[in-house]
Amino acid sequence: MQVANPYIFKIKPYVPGKPIDEVKRELGLDSVIKLASNENPYPPSPKVLAAMAKAGREINRYPDGGCFVLRRALAKKLNIDDDHLIFGNGSDEIIVLAVKAFAAKGDDIIIAKPSFLIYEIASILSGARLHQVPLKEFRYDLEAMKAKINARTRIIFIGNPDNPAGTYVTQRQVENFLRGVPKSTLVFFDEAYFEYVQAKDYPDTLNLMKKYPNVMTIRTFSKMYGLAGLRVGYGIANREIIDILNRLREPFNVNSMAQAAAVAVLGDEAYYRRIAKEVNEQRQYLYRSFENRGISYEISFTNFILVHVGGDSSQVARDLLKRGVIIRDMAVWGLKGYIRVSIGNASENKRFIKSLGEIL
Amino acid sequence: MQVANPYIFKIKPYVPGKPIDEVKRELGLDSVIKLASNENPYPPSPKVLAAMAKAGREINRYPDGGCFVLRRALAKKLNIDDDHLIFGNGSDEIIVLAVKAFAAKGDDIIIAKPSFLIYEIASILSGARLHQVPLKEFRYDLEAMKAKINARTRIIFIGNPDNPAGTYVTQRQVENFLRGVPKSTLVFFDEAYFEYVQAKDYPDTLNLMKKYPNVMTIRTFSKMYGLAGLRVGYGIANREIIDILNRLREPFNVNSMAQAAAVAVLGDEAYYRRIAKEVNEQRQYLYRSFENRGISYEISFTNFILVHVGGDSSQVARDLLKRGVIIRDMAVWGLKGYIRVSIGNASENKRFIKSLGEIL
Repeated sequence: MQVANPYIFKIKPYVPGKPIDEVKRELGLDSVIKLASNENPYPPSPKVLAAMAKAGREINRYPDGGCFVLRRALAKKLNIDDDHLIFGNGSDEIIVLAVKAFAAKGDDIIIAKPSFLIYEIASILSGARLHQVPLKEFRYDLEAMKAKINARTRIIFIGNPDNPAGTYVTQRQVENFLRGVPKSTLVFFDEAYFEYVQAKDYPDTLNLMKKYPNVMTIRTFSKMYGLAGLRVGYGIANREIIDILNRLREPFNVNSMAQAAAVAVLGDEAYYRRIAKEVNEQRQYLYRSFENRGISYEISFTNFILVHVGGDSSQVARDLLKRGVIIRDMAVWGLKGYIRVSIGNASENKRFIKSLGEIL
Repeated sequence: MQVANPYIFKIKPYVPGKPIDEVKRELGLDSVIKLASNENPYPPSPKVLAAMAKAGREINRYPDGGCFVLRRALAKKLNIDDDHLIFGNGSDEIIVLAVKAFAAKGDDIIIAKPSFLIYEIASILSGARLHQVPLKEFRYDLEAMKAKINARTRIIFIGNPDNPAGTYVTQRQVENFLRGVPKSTLVFFDEAYFEYVQAKDYPDTLNLMKKYPNVMTIRTFSKMYGLAGLRVGYGIANREIIDILNRLREPFNVNSMAQAAAVAVLGDEAYYRRIAKEVNEQRQYLYRSFENRGISYEISFTNFILVHVGGDSSQVARDLLKRGVIIRDMAVWGLKGYIRVSIGNASENKRFIKSLGEIL
């Protein structure tokens, strides 16, 4: 078959990963812990479990294509109009929709380097020219990104906090940046880790989009809210952008189990406040443990930490895997000597630190 | 914002539908039955419910992006290699991926008229020229479709059984058709209702694709298997096509609840055989009821029936809705005087027939 999109073959062929049970079997391990995907290590709240059980009994019915109940609950929580929201099969679907809507061959897209892989893949498939602006001391270099803008720049992706560094850009930096961006360029904030951020100067993008209609923001229920397996994220933007993206999505893109669970999450804030507190404590535990061993790391505003293990980080990753600990080797992202570890629960973090100590 | 794809505005603006609870409230009804979306009216099997409960407790983890367990189970059941399968967020996602991969501006796509709406929307967005070939006596007119083929024809969609007529094309008709189709044209069989078909001359497309590598087939867990709310469908094709489609999909497109439930479905054939039997009996009940009232209908090989109510079918639909029965008015599909009714459970069908009798 002849492909219509010549960029398809610029995407790496798909290699399915192995589920944890297979990894265990192959390595002869009884227990494996996964600190590689920035997941919330805690199970869903009892209210969420109850909502899922209820939704399960009616799973023979198609989902509500408009996410009516979830939309109303989230709009209320965010204090926005409900037609400023779009829901996706994970927030990564909204990244893909935005690129499809606004960028094509002959256009430009600006992202950071390294950055979340989906920005890059979606951009390549669109045929747009991709500008990758290196992080500066593990922070977005907004001035250097601004310098790359031209009349054909359609989208600038800003992960905030950033993955894999865990750092953030401030309200003032974003305001200075936005003043110089043409209105024809979409400034796309990816706030997947929003709920973990505790910083007074973190930007209020929902307010900024009133003044800058070319600003949009995505968030997700996959991280702090622990629904990664169900795939539900959302985008916030002005009506015009939301209408365009809605025309591109499939009518039943968000499954009904995800909708029900997300509504229950929004109704159970106390449970997630406890998780945030726990993650903060565990982040401090990991910092202390690194410091005690003379290992440097980047201060994180997320549920993961970029750690400088030095030398051959791929070997460190392999040695950790042999001990049943899965983390992410950052050499493949161009950060030699670095690993990224998700903040697990207390026993997982202890096991990771113990294993790391044995290796280094 | 300037859109990159000029076809976006050819798609109707999105208008969210109302959930059943809202409809009840507005119409002041205690109970509403939905026979509009060809859903399985029966709840999931106990094994499926148990599998969902288990998956729910681990929903904080990302799904297996390769659908490892489901892939293995389904490949075994279908007796095919597991790299001949792709999974989608519903089989409609696979329709969208195929159009994206193989058709663009300057290309041609052939579909039937009327037909499943997603073929049309995906084709319009690709910029390809769409040929819509009218059904002939409510059957696919494969000869007329073949006559439309030219050197730029990239995809031909064949819903089999067809929606909304419920009819099918036979093995012999398909074989005759395939002999005349260029190898550069993808012949895309949509077998969403496959599990309901009981006909010896129904085509074996999985076997046909050995001889015709330009054949692909999609099926779904949304219909007979009753997982519409979870969104999981699959495509079967040769390795080359599957590889291309895999490069285009998002890595976690199928949620883990759907994967777990689909595996449980495949392990519980007895439950679904009972449902098939029940649907057959109810189909006969509806046929008899129509005949007793002198209403004509199309013999169906699915879980829905195209019914000729005559006159103003939109008024019939509104009158049924007032009585709490939601069916699909086919006037909007260009079939004036027709409605499409899904085969519900015994009490739903009785209520539909009673209401219809009051109206006609």
